[in-house]
Amino acid sequence: MVTPVASAQSLDELLQSLAGFTSASPGVTRPVYGEAWCDAQRWLAERARALGLAATCDGIGNLLFHAPEVKPGDLSRSVLLVGSHLDTVAGGGAYDGAVGVLAALRVAAELRERNALPVVGFASCAAEDGRFGACGPGARGLLGLLRQEDLDATRDQDGVTLRRALDQARARGCAAPAAGGERPCPALFHPALMLELHVEQGPVLETEGLDLGIVEHVSGCRRMRVRLQGETRDSGTTPMNLRRDALAAAAEMVLAAERAARKAGPPAVATAGFLRAEPGRFSAVPGACELWLEVRHFERPRLVDLTAAIGQRCREIAQERGLGIEVDETTGHDPVAMSPKLAEAAAKLADRLKLSHGGMVSGAAHDAMEFARHGVPSLLVFVPSRHGASHSPEEFTDPAQLAAGHRFVLEFARWLTDARG
Amino acid sequence: MVTPVASAQSLDELLQSLAGFTSASPGVTRPVYGEAWCDAQRWLAERARALGLAATCDGIGNLLFHAPEVKPGDLSRSVLLVGSHLDTVAGGGAYDGAVGVLAALRVAAELRERNALPVVGFASCAAEDGRFGACGPGARGLLGLLRQEDLDATRDQDGVTLRRALDQARARGCAAPAAGGERPCPALFHPALMLELHVEQGPVLETEGLDLGIVEHVSGCRRMRVRLQGETRDSGTTPMNLRRDALAAAAEMVLAAERAARKAGPPAVATAGFLRAEPGRFSAVPGACELWLEVRHFERPRLVDLTAAIGQRCREIAQERGLGIEVDETTGHDPVAMSPKLAEAAAKLADRLKLSHGGMVSGAAHDAMEFARHGVPSLLVFVPSRHGASHSPEEFTDPAQLAAGHRFVLEFARWLTDARG
Repeated sequence: MVTPVASAQSLDELLQSLAGFTSASPGVTRPVYGEAWCDAQRWLAERARALGLAATCDGIGNLLFHAPEVKPGDLSRSVLLVGSHLDTVAGGGAYDGAVGVLAALRVAAELRERNALPVVGFASCAAEDGRFGACGPGARGLLGLLRQEDLDATRDQDGVTLRRALDQARARGCAAPAAGGERPCPALFHPALMLELHVEQGPVLETEGLDLGIVEHVSGCRRMRVRLQGETRDSGTTPMNLRRDALAAAAEMVLAAERAARKAGPPAVATAGFLRAEPGRFSAVPGACELWLEVRHFERPRLVDLTAAIGQRCREIAQERGLGIEVDETTGHDPVAMSPKLAEAAAKLADRLKLSHGGMVSGAAHDAMEFARHGVPSLLVFVPSRHGASHSPEEFTDPAQLAAGHRFVLEFARWLTDARG
Repeated sequence: MVTPVASAQSLDELLQSLAGFTSASPGVTRPVYGEAWCDAQRWLAERARALGLAATCDGIGNLLFHAPEVKPGDLSRSVLLVGSHLDTVAGGGAYDGAVGVLAALRVAAELRERNALPVVGFASCAAEDGRFGACGPGARGLLGLLRQEDLDATRDQDGVTLRRALDQARARGCAAPAAGGERPCPALFHPALMLELHVEQGPVLETEGLDLGIVEHVSGCRRMRVRLQGETRDSGTTPMNLRRDALAAAAEMVLAAERAARKAGPPAVATAGFLRAEPGRFSAVPGACELWLEVRHFERPRLVDLTAAIGQRCREIAQERGLGIEVDETTGHDPVAMSPKLAEAAAKLADRLKLSHGGMVSGAAHDAMEFARHGVPSLLVFVPSRHGASHSPEEFTDPAQLAAGHRFVLEFARWLTDARG
């Protein structure tokens, strides 16, 4: 009666099938609620049903797969949630969240008869930075935290609200029900524990030759938009000592941020991701500049201090050069500590499975972070990504390492549900 | 019979009238061959005729105003050419070349009965960097240096050839005749001497409290497009020591260029005018960057050395950071020495007129530079620009300083034509 479950070999085929749901090439472009995302979600629901599972869409568009006996909306029963996100950035890769979604499908199918702690797999929506901000609506929806006003207040870069984007997704066949009342997306399950597999998005596992990264902390993040105002002047006729060059000042700030993060030491990072100088001609000293800086650290006090130090240094540089400066802290989130007990148990299991592993800090936000932040004991596990490539068509994880990651998640879920069962 | 010539007061009115020929606000946007430029040229021709002058357009669109007895095409007779350019950059100001054009109109009118060395005023075209490259077709056209192939080889940023732009200008009423043969723009006059008044485009005269700047040298210029290739990586998950950050490298280069020019000392300048980092997100270490650098100096060996030193330092920075680098030297021109005899005579006249003055280097290119480069003894004189503003709506020169500049040019032309007459 049961369809054979994905083997290590067919996992690669499944990944390739999923990568086919893209609106652009090369790589995978599957923004949440878009055509490709809706099609991918329908395909996943069909796969889940073929494996003997029920597939249920919640009010924000998360897809959950579970044994038919486990009824959505029954919060009296705790479940183990396993999953990751289905959306990608523009020009992303085939791995990223897809690896964890397919692991969740496999675990939900193989363990669908565990009754004491039922397993519910999920493919969450809108975890990517691409459309509605990182780790936003999807995980909050799974936790039942979304309110009606969130659907109107959250907008993408084109100004489209979450509510309108959801309507558009429904028109494309997404099964998310439209709910009235205060909560547009009531939680369908009560998670006792949460488990997420993801690719690393960085080069640490590859560099250290490890099969698995067991995440102990997820870094917090602060983002600053720095706007500089100097004077646009002719490049040929304005002596060096009479310039108020906004680009030269921004260049000092880029290097100051880099230096500050290096001095703070790993895992502190600071990044200048965007810079625009105006007017942007050969023949003009740039009179205005916009610079985006981001700081991450897993300890809140050090995150706050490092951000403040970089902001302070930017203000000093502007003053030294006689420029106007505005520093807007736009977005950010605090660091989150993952469950030490689950991490310890994961390390023991990895030893038993003879998988090399290390504890690590995740610099990027993930669904598991939102669960941990809201008190659900959560495990986040990484498999390596070749050359640390992430959010790019270059993404690749060795098939043997992928299979090991999937096996680990299956065995960890088996152990969790055994221990409870 | 003679219409009264512009006084200091009406000069301001004339400037304001000319500033009205613009395709955008604020400031003046009058790219060569555009609607506003064609209208301004027609208006100037009418003003010249009202002052008793003939107005003749040459094959590239330079407008020349002169006594009717001085026949265009008669190269057996030498003339004194006086003028500047009529075109502006996008979002430029009311002063810039317009000041010199109106001075030329006045000088040609007041001195139109000088027979030994007739005065020919001009409003040249395409002197600005904006459309067809700095000091290009206009001055070369006055010198009779343009060839038919130049009309096809020179293109603006949209790929429109000079030939097509000229056709469009004719359709808008520009009187430039279309000429066959090898030379599309034969010289209409033989210049024995050339005289140009312009606003400074920098803060030196204002800073030093001078009425006039007498240009001794025009700086040469070298321009480089630097393209950097690193690795686009996740900003949260990529440790500082494993990054190949193209923007951080570019920031070092911006500061290296600035430092090198400061170390070389005035009048050396180096400018980073444009920078673009890709992909340009908060969440990505930029993997690619394009940076535009410009170097100017009035001594050729120092220009060459400084450019080479900056290029070399850029290559070192790229190597230190493990980045790919391409440095394209795109355009440039050699420095030009202006006529020392004319500069000396100008200083003496300024003393007699009780105008404070100083010798200076022009960092920017001007029509007078092209004349001097081609062996025509030329004088380039600057009036101050408030705050050194240039190519911006902020351009402003004090009316008394403007009037002094006009008076100086008139008296200098009178002396030149006297000395010859």
